[in-house]
Amino acid sequence: MRKIYYILIALVSTSLWSCAQSYPGLILTTQGVEKIKSEVHPPLFKKTLQSAIEKVDHAILEGIDVPTPKDMAGGYTHEQHKNNYKYMQLAGALYQINGDKKYAEYVKQTLMQYADKFSSWPVHPTNRSYATGKVFWQCLNDSNWLVFTSQAYDAIHEYLTKEEVEYLDQQLFRPYADFISIENPQFFNRVHNHSTWGNAAVGMIGLVMNDEELINRALYGLKINTDNSLAKDNDGGFIYEKGKAKAGFFAQIDYAFSPDGYYTEGPYYQRYAMLPFMLFAQAIENKRPDLKIFEYREGLLVKGVKALLYQTNASGEFFPINDAQKGMSIKAGSVVTALNIAYGISKDPDLINAARLQNSVLLDQNGFEIATQIEKLPLQPFEKSSIELKDGKDGDEGALGILRSGSGKDEFTVVFKYTGQGLGHGHYDKLSYAIYDGDVEVLQDYGAARWVNIDQKEGGRYLPENKTWAKQTIAHNTLVVDKKSHFGGKYEIANLNHSEGIFFNTDNPKAHAAGAVELNAYAGVEMRRIILLWKDDHFDKPVVLDIFEAVSDEEHIYDFPYQFAGQIMSQNFTVEGVQPEVMGDAHGYQHLYSEAIAEAGESIQMNWFKDNKFYTMTSESKPGDNIILGRMGANDPDFNLRRDALLIHRKNNASKAIFLSAIESHGTYSPVTERPIQPYSKIKSIETVENTATSVEIEVKSKSEKKWRLKINKQTGKVEIKERT
Amino acid sequence: MRKIYYILIALVSTSLWSCAQSYPGLILTTQGVEKIKSEVHPPLFKKTLQSAIEKVDHAILEGIDVPTPKDMAGGYTHEQHKNNYKYMQLAGALYQINGDKKYAEYVKQTLMQYADKFSSWPVHPTNRSYATGKVFWQCLNDSNWLVFTSQAYDAIHEYLTKEEVEYLDQQLFRPYADFISIENPQFFNRVHNHSTWGNAAVGMIGLVMNDEELINRALYGLKINTDNSLAKDNDGGFIYEKGKAKAGFFAQIDYAFSPDGYYTEGPYYQRYAMLPFMLFAQAIENKRPDLKIFEYREGLLVKGVKALLYQTNASGEFFPINDAQKGMSIKAGSVVTALNIAYGISKDPDLINAARLQNSVLLDQNGFEIATQIEKLPLQPFEKSSIELKDGKDGDEGALGILRSGSGKDEFTVVFKYTGQGLGHGHYDKLSYAIYDGDVEVLQDYGAARWVNIDQKEGGRYLPENKTWAKQTIAHNTLVVDKKSHFGGKYEIANLNHSEGIFFNTDNPKAHAAGAVELNAYAGVEMRRIILLWKDDHFDKPVVLDIFEAVSDEEHIYDFPYQFAGQIMSQNFTVEGVQPEVMGDAHGYQHLYSEAIAEAGESIQMNWFKDNKFYTMTSESKPGDNIILGRMGANDPDFNLRRDALLIHRKNNASKAIFLSAIESHGTYSPVTERPIQPYSKIKSIETVENTATSVEIEVKSKSEKKWRLKINKQTGKVEIKERT
Repeated sequence: MRKIYYILIALVSTSLWSCAQSYPGLILTTQGVEKIKSEVHPPLFKKTLQSAIEKVDHAILEGIDVPTPKDMAGGYTHEQHKNNYKYMQLAGALYQINGDKKYAEYVKQTLMQYADKFSSWPVHPTNRSYATGKVFWQCLNDSNWLVFTSQAYDAIHEYLTKEEVEYLDQQLFRPYADFISIENPQFFNRVHNHSTWGNAAVGMIGLVMNDEELINRALYGLKINTDNSLAKDNDGGFIYEKGKAKAGFFAQIDYAFSPDGYYTEGPYYQRYAMLPFMLFAQAIENKRPDLKIFEYREGLLVKGVKALLYQTNASGEFFPINDAQKGMSIKAGSVVTALNIAYGISKDPDLINAARLQNSVLLDQNGFEIATQIEKLPLQPFEKSSIELKDGKDGDEGALGILRSGSGKDEFTVVFKYTGQGLGHGHYDKLSYAIYDGDVEVLQDYGAARWVNIDQKEGGRYLPENKTWAKQTIAHNTLVVDKKSHFGGKYEIANLNHSEGIFFNTDNPKAHAAGAVELNAYAGVEMRRIILLWKDDHFDKPVVLDIFEAVSDEEHIYDFPYQFAGQIMSQNFTVEGVQPEVMGDAHGYQHLYSEAIAEAGESIQMNWFKDNKFYTMTSESKPGDNIILGRMGANDPDFNLRRDALLIHRKNNASKAIFLSAIESHGTYSPVTERPIQPYSKIKSIETVENTATSVEIEVKSKSEKKWRLKINKQTGKVEIKERT
Repeated sequence: MRKIYYILIALVSTSLWSCAQSYPGLILTTQGVEKIKSEVHPPLFKKTLQSAIEKVDHAILEGIDVPTPKDMAGGYTHEQHKNNYKYMQLAGALYQINGDKKYAEYVKQTLMQYADKFSSWPVHPTNRSYATGKVFWQCLNDSNWLVFTSQAYDAIHEYLTKEEVEYLDQQLFRPYADFISIENPQFFNRVHNHSTWGNAAVGMIGLVMNDEELINRALYGLKINTDNSLAKDNDGGFIYEKGKAKAGFFAQIDYAFSPDGYYTEGPYYQRYAMLPFMLFAQAIENKRPDLKIFEYREGLLVKGVKALLYQTNASGEFFPINDAQKGMSIKAGSVVTALNIAYGISKDPDLINAARLQNSVLLDQNGFEIATQIEKLPLQPFEKSSIELKDGKDGDEGALGILRSGSGKDEFTVVFKYTGQGLGHGHYDKLSYAIYDGDVEVLQDYGAARWVNIDQKEGGRYLPENKTWAKQTIAHNTLVVDKKSHFGGKYEIANLNHSEGIFFNTDNPKAHAAGAVELNAYAGVEMRRIILLWKDDHFDKPVVLDIFEAVSDEEHIYDFPYQFAGQIMSQNFTVEGVQPEVMGDAHGYQHLYSEAIAEAGESIQMNWFKDNKFYTMTSESKPGDNIILGRMGANDPDFNLRRDALLIHRKNNASKAIFLSAIESHGTYSPVTERPIQPYSKIKSIETVENTATSVEIEVKSKSEKKWRLKINKQTGKVEIKERT
């Protein structure tokens, strides 16, 4: 039955496809090589080329080593095989661009060693993955190898004899492709970023080998029955999601992105996933233009790249939502690749400004063109405006609302998260937000508890505290009810739900507004949040206004955290220092110390210092409310957590409550000039004037006795502002 | 009597001095102006000039304001008067260089307002200084004003009528100079950086006014009897030190620096003090070349500037020894001024490399020349080799030993402190050290507990925790005996003592060595430390070897802290997590929590991560020793302390003991590539082989079974290294 399926597909495909093979043609093309050889190299291309030459020459000098697979990530054999595919890919490009045969010979000899050994290697001895690889500990890394190496193979294909090609195809590439597909359907046939890598690997080598069976397998998946619907992968995600019957590359595009190009796992995983998407798509575009892959789903792949670029702070670092290691940025090689290919397709000049931040290009026709345009186009920051990125395959599972003002170093950003759960890497952070002033986190998202690839920390894998702290609600900037995480911290329930965006309204240039509701995180508690990015000439920077409403018929403890992670400068409440006490025994509270507690009056105001800037939060409060100054690090025997500070505004025995705050970034300080500029906030108080079913009106008072009333329509996000002095 | 003294001095001076006055001639000279006007401006000069124009034009646009003095530092009137003198100084230079009269007019009108108001102002209402100022809260700031304004006055002198000059001299400058000298002898007549400012202020305005009485007062001090020898200033330092009878500028040079140019308070205070030293000296050189001020004490002032530049990390940030706010660097305006003047005198081309780091120059002939040389000379890092800077007026009160390797970003530095106490700003840190890898603190000096000029933190003054934590021994990297600070934390005793350097030996290029002894910090405990900066091809970076010997007839608790301030990655001891407990009630221990405790075996090894680098300490230990993983922040109700981590190696009931450690900086990690390079140390163990009265021999074993024996002569610091495999 499976055989007939393949034959049918093959027949259909062949009839559509009649291009002759020419090498190179997978990513770098013969026309591209001609252009690069005939024109003067622009500086960035020259720099990238020089850096590649240094790396590969060094690798050649060190000698080829293809060791028997043994180690986990970080260990010798893992890193050596990783180096091999990276340097082979670069060497292939160098052979084409410089014409120096030593690069082709290096790739050839390395490939021959792999071909000689591959069949003798058993499955990787570690056996710690749901899909153990052969060269690496997981099929995912094996796929990385094949995605890169297929480019090297394409680049030196003409350098090889027919016999050498046959030997490599039969001894190495075909068995390798079969291994990560037919022999590991639980890896290859999912709708998941792992499988995208698998599809790209099999498809790209198939395109080089002109092997239609492999190409079709990559595009449309294996036809198998999958009954083990409750099986999970190493991250705790379901291997097969209900209702997702399709597999293969087109299915990945169908399911991985929302129509806005948002990737439900968030930008940290998207930047990694974009690489196989874009590389395989470019290869398809080059070899199978009839498939019009970049037009698929209204040009979704390029949209995906842009959505990824928008989810960054002023330095191009990704918002660390869901599981994400902080500091990952658009400078990553995978994003350079994705952007280069997206530019090649779209020719969007704004991508040139993002490429300037990357300061690196691909060694192909796209990289050459970008490096050329960087010289030609005027210097501008990468412009990112306010944008809402809808989540879910059909764009109906909440969204990520990004409110923005300014650009370059003056970029001020609020990231408001009312998305779906984000699969196995999702956090319990419904309606949470984070604020950036340039690249400084004013209120932070903790990110993941993980040091990727660092062996000392459990081999670089997720640490236990990722689950017990980083994923928990209290580790974010959103409401915690009765000291329990959203959905009780249960993935199975969380994954069935998503928040709902109500409005994302940027009509009023003085106050971009986003509103969302979450009905399912806590049974019987409705949570609504409205965020305004408010601009007024009285303030040098935008002010974030935050209206968080919780409604319940029952009384609860409401904990509202502010992850300021800085040094407290002053506050309007009386602090009683305490011996640090662990705040609880579950849902993240077991990792928090209370360092000080205070009784709130009519308002809470705290001024802090971080990264040479001054910030102030001003909140409405009621007598009886508590303020807890807390710090992370309790029950952390392996010192896996940072010791960051947070403030928790606690309402006891509350049913209906509003948390209303203004967050100002207002001052700077340099330890060289020792001169503070505007160390104090300008806002004196913030109050709810009226809150009805249809609108909420707030009043902000400045210390200079200015008053503003902002009335926000709860359905449309229309903001009316009245100023009085 | 006083009168006769002045007349005599005046007579002597006049006979030597017969130069006619020409304006400008104080700092910027007429010849300098001619040169600047006639030549093409090099880029850095152009940039500095443009920045000055922007600042002054903005100030002119804002309008002149000379408010009635009222505020402390950070408050409006303080900042406005500070702006006034800064912008007047710049405006004076701009008038000379650009010839635009609006700048002269701005200075003139501002000065006229001061002159109109000065006599009506009482002493500053704050009354919080031992020497309350008139325009500012302390005479020190008043002196700053006069040092800067005298330059502005000199620059526009020709623009003024004779009547205007007379009015300003009589209504403003002479009374101002008298106020900070005659009316505040406790400020003016000390040997102290405050008085250096006072001397420079009075002397510089005297030179502009051609007022010999003021000039002599500045050079030789007031002749008064000072009986209040126990009076203290606001920092707790004695106003008059025993045996220091002299006063005035020459006395400051005599007493402030050691023959090596080391300033006993350390570089943070030196960078501030160098400004009046160098400016006044330059003014004297220009106006009174007969005094040969730059030849005084064998060219000490230029030596002082160089000593200051040497006390920096790779980014030019000063070592935060004694009271010092971290981040202060050679980019400070005062150091730009000092370096520019030192270059003008010495023409030392290496200063050009330091000037590149500063990226700013003075708007005078020296700045012009430096900016020109920056274009001409090849790009090189500022070279700083190993150097010992002797402390004490006569260079016999210990020293600061700086062991160095590499330059630029590869600069690796150990700062070993066996100096005197450093006056009122000194810390109880005998034989302490700090390590820098580039600009990253491998083992930190905490610095001061202070946010300079930041009003929220007690008006920017020293915080209580500066005394209770930052000055205490446990806040440093040196031995604490019986949980008490050196000298019991008593300034009066500490100030009478200093450590003794035994050797500073850089003969062996593989191991620069410094050795010192401290006999007085603890009665009955002799402390000796030898530091080696060891270079071997087996390691990518130098390894710090630390041999700390404590000898006593009695048993003590020895606490040996490692201020690593990073994230623990792994360790060779079993940690028992504990509820944080306050470690004591005095000598800084009241600010420490123990977060975990462990029993030591034969060795202690800990690997940590900080600023994207990996470090490892490896120490010899004995069963029975304890390891305490601690953190700062206990008893800190105002959140004045950072929450930095430290490790304490504790020996209980010890009399004679050696703390032997190796500190490696061995690896890096980028969150963009996610690739750790050498995350683990190469050293497996370190041991004392033999320790006699004359030498100590240690053995270092690598994980790859290499062995090295290093034998150090305890008198000479000669290091013999034997390697075996």
